[in-house]
Amino acid sequence: MERRKFLKTAAGGTVGAAALAAPAVAQERTDMVIVSTWGRDFPGLGTSAQRLAARIEELTEGRIAVQYFAAGERVGAFDSFDEVASGNAQAYIAADYYWKGKHPGWAPFTAVPFGLTYNEIDAWMKFGGGQELLDKIGAEFGIKGMPCGNTGVQKGGWFNKEINSPEDLKGLKMRIPGLGGDVMAKVGASPVSLPGGQIYENLVSGAIDATEWVGPWNDFFLKLYEAAKYYYWPGMHEPGSQLSLGLNAEFWGSLSQSDKNIITSASAEENAMQAAETNYNNGIYLTRLVNEYGVELREFNDDVYEAFGEAATEVIEEARDHSPLAAEIFDSFLAVRDNVGSYTNYADASYVVKRNRFLGI
Amino acid sequence: MERRKFLKTAAGGTVGAAALAAPAVAQERTDMVIVSTWGRDFPGLGTSAQRLAARIEELTEGRIAVQYFAAGERVGAFDSFDEVASGNAQAYIAADYYWKGKHPGWAPFTAVPFGLTYNEIDAWMKFGGGQELLDKIGAEFGIKGMPCGNTGVQKGGWFNKEINSPEDLKGLKMRIPGLGGDVMAKVGASPVSLPGGQIYENLVSGAIDATEWVGPWNDFFLKLYEAAKYYYWPGMHEPGSQLSLGLNAEFWGSLSQSDKNIITSASAEENAMQAAETNYNNGIYLTRLVNEYGVELREFNDDVYEAFGEAATEVIEEARDHSPLAAEIFDSFLAVRDNVGSYTNYADASYVVKRNRFLGI
Repeated sequence: MERRKFLKTAAGGTVGAAALAAPAVAQERTDMVIVSTWGRDFPGLGTSAQRLAARIEELTEGRIAVQYFAAGERVGAFDSFDEVASGNAQAYIAADYYWKGKHPGWAPFTAVPFGLTYNEIDAWMKFGGGQELLDKIGAEFGIKGMPCGNTGVQKGGWFNKEINSPEDLKGLKMRIPGLGGDVMAKVGASPVSLPGGQIYENLVSGAIDATEWVGPWNDFFLKLYEAAKYYYWPGMHEPGSQLSLGLNAEFWGSLSQSDKNIITSASAEENAMQAAETNYNNGIYLTRLVNEYGVELREFNDDVYEAFGEAATEVIEEARDHSPLAAEIFDSFLAVRDNVGSYTNYADASYVVKRNRFLGI
Repeated sequence: MERRKFLKTAAGGTVGAAALAAPAVAQERTDMVIVSTWGRDFPGLGTSAQRLAARIEELTEGRIAVQYFAAGERVGAFDSFDEVASGNAQAYIAADYYWKGKHPGWAPFTAVPFGLTYNEIDAWMKFGGGQELLDKIGAEFGIKGMPCGNTGVQKGGWFNKEINSPEDLKGLKMRIPGLGGDVMAKVGASPVSLPGGQIYENLVSGAIDATEWVGPWNDFFLKLYEAAKYYYWPGMHEPGSQLSLGLNAEFWGSLSQSDKNIITSASAEENAMQAAETNYNNGIYLTRLVNEYGVELREFNDDVYEAFGEAATEVIEEARDHSPLAAEIFDSFLAVRDNVGSYTNYADASYVVKRNRFLGI
């Protein structure tokens, strides 16, 4: 071998190795384990979480290597918070009201009965002080949170008898968790907590009289139309359920500003993406439920809504009274309900009512 | 020099040079000129466009160097389209219905009278085929478009007399552009086009009898409350005005997949950001207009809305009949109005009406 040729080859080989190695140096790989409260491939909730996990890796060109674990694949759904707060995982995708046992101030970041719709909660988070308060409660637990999804106004639920007055709610065994369940208890019903997979069998067997789940799209896949006759609207218990990406605060602090920006952008993109996906599919599946499965839609009347409203006011006051931080969060949330919420009536809500009346839809 | 040492140094030196060179190669700078139809620092529209321009540069870590020109700074607002289609600039931020003279199929990508709200148009764009149709019409003009903002349901406008029946609209000289103006013409009014800066003086002088603009936030800064007594709701003409980032198709094709992803993500982020900002501020400013400036709110009654609806149906049909592509776009848009639009009535719209009735807001 000629020396010149050998050198060239050696250098060339080294350059080749360096060229391969250099991007690795410039783009130090960060591992990010995301755990979730949603089942693998669960339509809407699960697929949205998986899409966000993939998007973070894609937008950072793999600088952040994401490993996503659905509920039960690494830890149980409700252990996600502790897994991230402790640093065992770097982030969760969840509904923050699952942590209201740790602090009731988490609840408004998902949903509160008689609370904010998707548009209203997004206005709160981005311009009404919501993000700052999520940062404040997060700091107490070592979590940096941000919105990453919204499933909109839930349906009122599936019933086998008509609800014509608040009296009809008394004694009703209904699957409805969280603050919505607290409202139902105050109006005399017996709220029950059941995971999604057990609702159908309990409703068919008569172990429960009624249930809510999410909306037409998700409810369709639980076949709840086989187990109950009447589908009530509109739900009062979760008027715009927001989901969160919650990152371990130390992990968040270790990221470059660029990666922080990209995660924030990806999360905001998915927040709107899931809201659009839910709206689109709810429209399609409500039409199918009525036209193909003979589901009968029923509207909660004003008397029933009045009873819900009075109970919800009490439930909110009780949660608010927990601590100064809870009061600060609920007061900020309720201020936006007053301002933006009253505005919605003069804009989207009244427009849709008038347009649809004219169109006969 | 020992052969072994020389080789090591040579290799080491080469590795060093390669390591330094690699990031520069990986981050070739791309220049992107964005022109806009909005004035510099114009609240909402202008500031949103500027925020997106800055965000693209930030998220790409300056790989894409953005130069942003507000309306009139490089070309006039309505020359933005040609400037980008010709390749003189790389992108515009605008309302695509400004190009309906080129093809009426552009209109639904901003707003159509009796059309889709923000949530509904977002469902159409992301899951109902809207983005694919924007790509299709864009391809005919050398434009790759994507949503980048939404200003929500517009107010019905400012009037100096009450509108109690369709008769009251006849002969009314009203500033209202586009398809909304066509609707007003069909009900007997005389629509006038005026740029924002000339509305106030024309309304004060009596040269026009009425005007619409955007909503409480934007209208506040035009001081329209000084020039007219009644503020009507809800507007029928622009129920969820979407704004677009329109890129030169050849420029778009030249970008890396990563930069395409980041621009898409940033644009989706800003789309929701502007919607939230508008909702939030409309809530704040409607309260101020009523409480501090004595503005009297009036609701269009069912008779008036019926007349608007009939005229809007004709306007839509005329635009639809332009060409097969226009028909394809309008039919897709109207299918989402039927499915998702009817669903909105069972969800956000009815929930807000019932919640607000209980709250007395």
